[in-house]
Amino acid sequence: MIKTYNPEFEQDIREKLQRQGFMKLLGFHVTKIAAGSIEGELTLEPHHRQHKGFAHGGLIATLADIVAGFAAVSLVPKDHHVVTAEIKVSYFHPGVGDKLLVKGYVIKQGRKLNFCEAEVYDVRGAAEPLLIAKASATMATITPEEIARRV
Amino acid sequence: MIKTYNPEFEQDIREKLQRQGFMKLLGFHVTKIAAGSIEGELTLEPHHRQHKGFAHGGLIATLADIVAGFAAVSLVPKDHHVVTAEIKVSYFHPGVGDKLLVKGYVIKQGRKLNFCEAEVYDVRGAAEPLLIAKASATMATITPEEIARRV
Amino acid sequence: MIKTYNPEFEQDIREKLQRQGFMKLLGFHVTKIAAGSIEGELTLEPHHRQHKGFAHGGLIATLADIVAGFAAVSLVPKDHHVVTAEIKVSYFHPGVGDKLLVKGYVIKQGRKLNFCEAEVYDVRGAAEPLLIAKASATMATITPEEIARRV
Amino acid sequence: MIKTYNPEFEQDIREKLQRQGFMKLLGFHVTKIAAGSIEGELTLEPHHRQHKGFAHGGLIATLADIVAGFAAVSLVPKDHHVVTAEIKVSYFHPGVGDKLLVKGYVIKQGRKLNFCEAEVYDVRGAAEPLLIAKASATMATITPEEIARRV
Repeated sequence: MIKTYNPEFEQDIREKLQRQGFMKLLGFHVTKIAAGSIEGELTLEPHHRQHKGFAHGGLIATLADIVAGFAAVSLVPKDHHVVTAEIKVSYFHPGVGDKLLVKGYVIKQGRKLNFCEAEVYDVRGAAEPLLIAKASATMATITPEEIARRV
Repeated sequence: MIKTYNPEFEQDIREKLQRQGFMKLLGFHVTKIAAGSIEGELTLEPHHRQHKGFAHGGLIATLADIVAGFAAVSLVPKDHHVVTAEIKVSYFHPGVGDKLLVKGYVIKQGRKLNFCEAEVYDVRGAAEPLLIAKASATMATITPEEIARRV
Repeated sequence: MIKTYNPEFEQDIREKLQRQGFMKLLGFHVTKIAAGSIEGELTLEPHHRQHKGFAHGGLIATLADIVAGFAAVSLVPKDHHVVTAEIKVSYFHPGVGDKLLVKGYVIKQGRKLNFCEAEVYDVRGAAEPLLIAKASATMATITPEEIARRV
Repeated sequence: MIKTYNPEFEQDIREKLQRQGFMKLLGFHVTKIAAGSIEGELTLEPHHRQHKGFAHGGLIATLADIVAGFAAVSLVPKDHHVVTAEIKVSYFHPGVGDKLLVKGYVIKQGRKLNFCEAEVYDVRGAAEPLLIAKASATMATITPEEIARRV
């Protein structure tokens, strides 16, 4: 039932990623772009951690927000925008590994609202990646008329 | 009804902040530490923004998580830890100003769970700071026995 | 900054309440209707409780949803609808008293989305009502054009 | 990784269901009880609907809370309790059918906190049941020592 209204979504998302100052600061890389589904990864460095040495919860929320948001972006028409109305992140385990894998996907596409989820996995050596956090988000679509009204 | 079980909470929080790699990466500064309530600010730089020039939603979630979490930390005994069980952030306006102000506070203190909220304000020149996001979070207390079991 | 677009909101809400089968089943009464703010109360009966004798969490979520939703309804034009996009409810204490008081209010009014909160208080004899739950919700406005498209 | 600490969980849950006044008021029936997973259904009557004729959002939140909560109950030791710390429900479609199907399951079992999800499906005649709402919840385990302290 998921359908994209932008045939060039992959290229458009890559261009938007280029202008994401915050994503570059974090060192997050998108590895897969499909219609309604985005994946990426981040190598954990000391500056990603909080005072106990775990990946910061805010970092995890940020990665979840990015992949959930771009999953929605992949579906809307080229001239529409997507903004996060709200996101909830639940934390299951501390992130103590070397790398985080993140998957975001749309579970209910809508004209105005896209409901998305994101999963964050911790990669600890050769073990199976561990699901350490899950997010649910409401992503609102902004039409060109609404963008014009805002300026 | 809010009561701290750590008379040295202010100094302890300052020491923990020193070891927060991620907070330093972001450039966030805590400006006020009280029992059950923390405030801070961040000067918005290009690397804090997403592709449309707004403060990144993940940055806002991170700041909300920090102040809500430390508001809970200020109440628990010195040898206890606090972890975020879940946080929900609602976004009211884009962050387009020069600086973000953040307030976190405990609204229900508990033995195992502290329910906290956080407010994020955008400072745009001389105007009244605008509430651009609000968060509600469940912060779980980890006792020394539980910390020992984890190792 | 909260402003109603329906001068007859109070009467319109009273008419809608008349058609709320579920609200009648529960026995919930609205006691105050203002622009962007609704209050009500419910006398706790055995059929409102779960197996431990506490007010059911679903009952509390329902009351929170009703007052948060009607707080948004009070602001939108007469021919617009409001639907709950999502609601989160945090539970601070069990509801063990005789009566529940509920307050819902809009904290950020928007053209498409209204962000609302609700507070649920337990009334235990002569004591000060106790805040036992708090909710945050995203209420979406449905325009007449959108209502027509749905049919 | 999900493991029950109560070999008699099915019978214990059936006994608790008998004492659920609110669940009986609603007319909800549990149809399947497994370790970490509960299913049930409800035939939609006029008293379950709001003023536009849709299944009330509070009803949907209640069913989600019941199955998510009992999914957690199925895992904890017999003398432990489970309480909802928080639940978030996202609404994808209005409930307009004849019956609601509900599934609740634990996605991360923990000593103190169980993270659960619930899915609500609308059954409209012979069509495939439609996912109309999804919930994520934090269910807290209460030990016998904590129960004793509360009294």
